[in-house]
Amino acid sequence: MPTDPDAPLRITAFDWVPDFARGYVRDLRPRWACEEIGLPYSTRLISAIDRPADHYARQPWGQVPVIDDDGLCMFESGAILLHLGEKDERLLPRDREGRARVTSWLFAAYNSVEPLFFEIGNVEIFAAGKEWAKLRRPSLLEEAGQRLDRLETALGTRDWLAGEFSIADIAMVTVLRDATGADLLEQRPRLAAYVERGTSRPAFQAALAAQLADFRPDPVAA
Amino acid sequence: MPTDPDAPLRITAFDWVPDFARGYVRDLRPRWACEEIGLPYSTRLISAIDRPADHYARQPWGQVPVIDDDGLCMFESGAILLHLGEKDERLLPRDREGRARVTSWLFAAYNSVEPLFFEIGNVEIFAAGKEWAKLRRPSLLEEAGQRLDRLETALGTRDWLAGEFSIADIAMVTVLRDATGADLLEQRPRLAAYVERGTSRPAFQAALAAQLADFRPDPVAA
Repeated sequence: MPTDPDAPLRITAFDWVPDFARGYVRDLRPRWACEEIGLPYSTRLISAIDRPADHYARQPWGQVPVIDDDGLCMFESGAILLHLGEKDERLLPRDREGRARVTSWLFAAYNSVEPLFFEIGNVEIFAAGKEWAKLRRPSLLEEAGQRLDRLETALGTRDWLAGEFSIADIAMVTVLRDATGADLLEQRPRLAAYVERGTSRPAFQAALAAQLADFRPDPVAA
Repeated sequence: MPTDPDAPLRITAFDWVPDFARGYVRDLRPRWACEEIGLPYSTRLISAIDRPADHYARQPWGQVPVIDDDGLCMFESGAILLHLGEKDERLLPRDREGRARVTSWLFAAYNSVEPLFFEIGNVEIFAAGKEWAKLRRPSLLEEAGQRLDRLETALGTRDWLAGEFSIADIAMVTVLRDATGADLLEQRPRLAAYVERGTSRPAFQAALAAQLADFRPDPVAA
């Protein structure tokens, strides 16, 4: 496992989140990328409840992850994945065509697929009791289903979006993995198999374990 | 104006969209980037109503823009902006810190700000008559307002997100410009001034004119 308190790459993550969010906070993405290439990283854990004031200077909305890579500060997990991809061709190919495919799919995950899952998360969890959420749910799941049908067609019989495994898959697998509960993957076996292929990778499992290990116990149980 | 039918960079755009969408289709972003650096481009115009079947092989959801840059195919305007940024430091600085700032802000536009505007577009236009949209509108505008408050704070007194003008501003200005109608900008003068600064650039105006010139007349009026 590449966590190392002296590593010059430091990932900021939360020290506690509610149960439903554990294993899904987006520092999982850079952790996964680091595990894939054996790049050591350290963590800075901050409170999600009382976010340090100086954190907003690094991340406009107080979110995680942010990284400090030997003095270089970045926010947004997509930008961080791109930065980590530049370090190793196993994450981002060096040839022009391969790079173009990966960045196209990387933005597809962040801008064409994840926004629908933000809405689904709202409807299914954060606003679940609200009248608008109940009324919105059917059309939203239909729209998301159509989006995923096209994604499944585009993936075709390939194992990974851009040919070889890449940062685009780290993004898309972690986006699609949030679809639990809505049957969206169960109805699309090739996408379900894609997500399973991603989450079965030892690097994903190590990243997941590392995120979970960093959470303090639930304060209610303390 | 750098449109040139023989240019090796070809941008695919729609040949017609309804009035409310004119000037807002996202091929505006690569057009703007090309205008900033004087990079000639040609256009391939396709129908938004009957999208050619082969277009889905280039863009999983049949959207625009896609580009063909001398044989290199890409989709997703964010990835295309990044690709164009690699051509000229006026769009994407060459130093490590500058590049990190620009890519962080580029993904912020695509993943932290634009998803809320997708929802607003839905509530204000596409689903405007639906009961869920009426019920959802107040909380959505409140969430978007909070997101923009933080953005305004993060922009501070700078002219551009990452210091100098960059592809991050092309993305964020075109995202924020979609806020018309919801008063979100009017309430935040520094953000409104930022959008005004962006849309006043000659390159933006040229890109806008070029997109508008490519639309066929409304079939109703034909």
